[in-house]
Amino acid sequence: MTSPGTKPLYLDDLYVGQRFTSAAYRMDADEMKTFARQFDPQPFHLNEDAARSSLFQGLAASGWHTAAVAMRLIVLGGLPLAGGVIGLGAELDWPQPTRAGDTLHVESEIIEIRPSRSKRNQAIVKVRSNVLNQNDEPVQILVAKLLVFKRPQD
Amino acid sequence: MTSPGTKPLYLDDLYVGQRFTSAAYRMDADEMKTFARQFDPQPFHLNEDAARSSLFQGLAASGWHTAAVAMRLIVLGGLPLAGGVIGLGAELDWPQPTRAGDTLHVESEIIEIRPSRSKRNQAIVKVRSNVLNQNDEPVQILVAKLLVFKRPQD
Repeated sequence: MTSPGTKPLYLDDLYVGQRFTSAAYRMDADEMKTFARQFDPQPFHLNEDAARSSLFQGLAASGWHTAAVAMRLIVLGGLPLAGGVIGLGAELDWPQPTRAGDTLHVESEIIEIRPSRSKRNQAIVKVRSNVLNQNDEPVQILVAKLLVFKRPQD
Repeated sequence: MTSPGTKPLYLDDLYVGQRFTSAAYRMDADEMKTFARQFDPQPFHLNEDAARSSLFQGLAASGWHTAAVAMRLIVLGGLPLAGGVIGLGAELDWPQPTRAGDTLHVESEIIEIRPSRSKRNQAIVKVRSNVLNQNDEPVQILVAKLLVFKRPQD
């Protein structure tokens, strides 16, 4: 398991089954509402009272807020890729809501490495990132297709 | 094609092939950088100069910012579902970057309706939402699994 602080990795350094863990992030009710007002203005993301009588039975973060926080954790050391974390696409599942006060972290694993046919120095790397709360319950499962580069040759 | 302002639709009102279009949203460079600072702090999302020499050859929005703006457009009339837009999961593709000054809108189509086996008043509805820029080029293709409810019986 690689921890935050690892130096950036090139394609040459990656292998299927390799695992990474991110730092943690505490979800704050005000931040959840601010995000929702801007991007997902629905009662169950905006207001505790309205949320209580909704399907969610309490304030829930927008799934896109959970996704954005997961990206922050991944970029800030959760997946130390040289050249950056460049996504071509992703699959997302939200098995349960993120709640105010939840402390999230991301556990990532490389599940596939597919070298580019046309560009010798590139590959598409598939990474599964489980976003877990403080009880180790997944609030998001992300499988991302990332563009990863070989170490430059001198 | 249903336009913003349509009254909220229940499962009873939906059919495969039904289409919806959202209002438009102009992407602003400062907003892109603010989002990136908070959630995706990578040079090509934060700084024009750094972005110019990157893979993106210019400032690009975080894909998660594009996703969040698309959700805003969907929630604010782009997909008028009674009970709200409740996602269980999603597939995302970002075929090209979103740029500062791009005007985005979302064209959605219902592609599958799968009634719940256990809950008679619910279905999982699959919706493909193409996020298009001012040149009608897709910057994001989203296929979302949404929880949709039947009209309540009196």
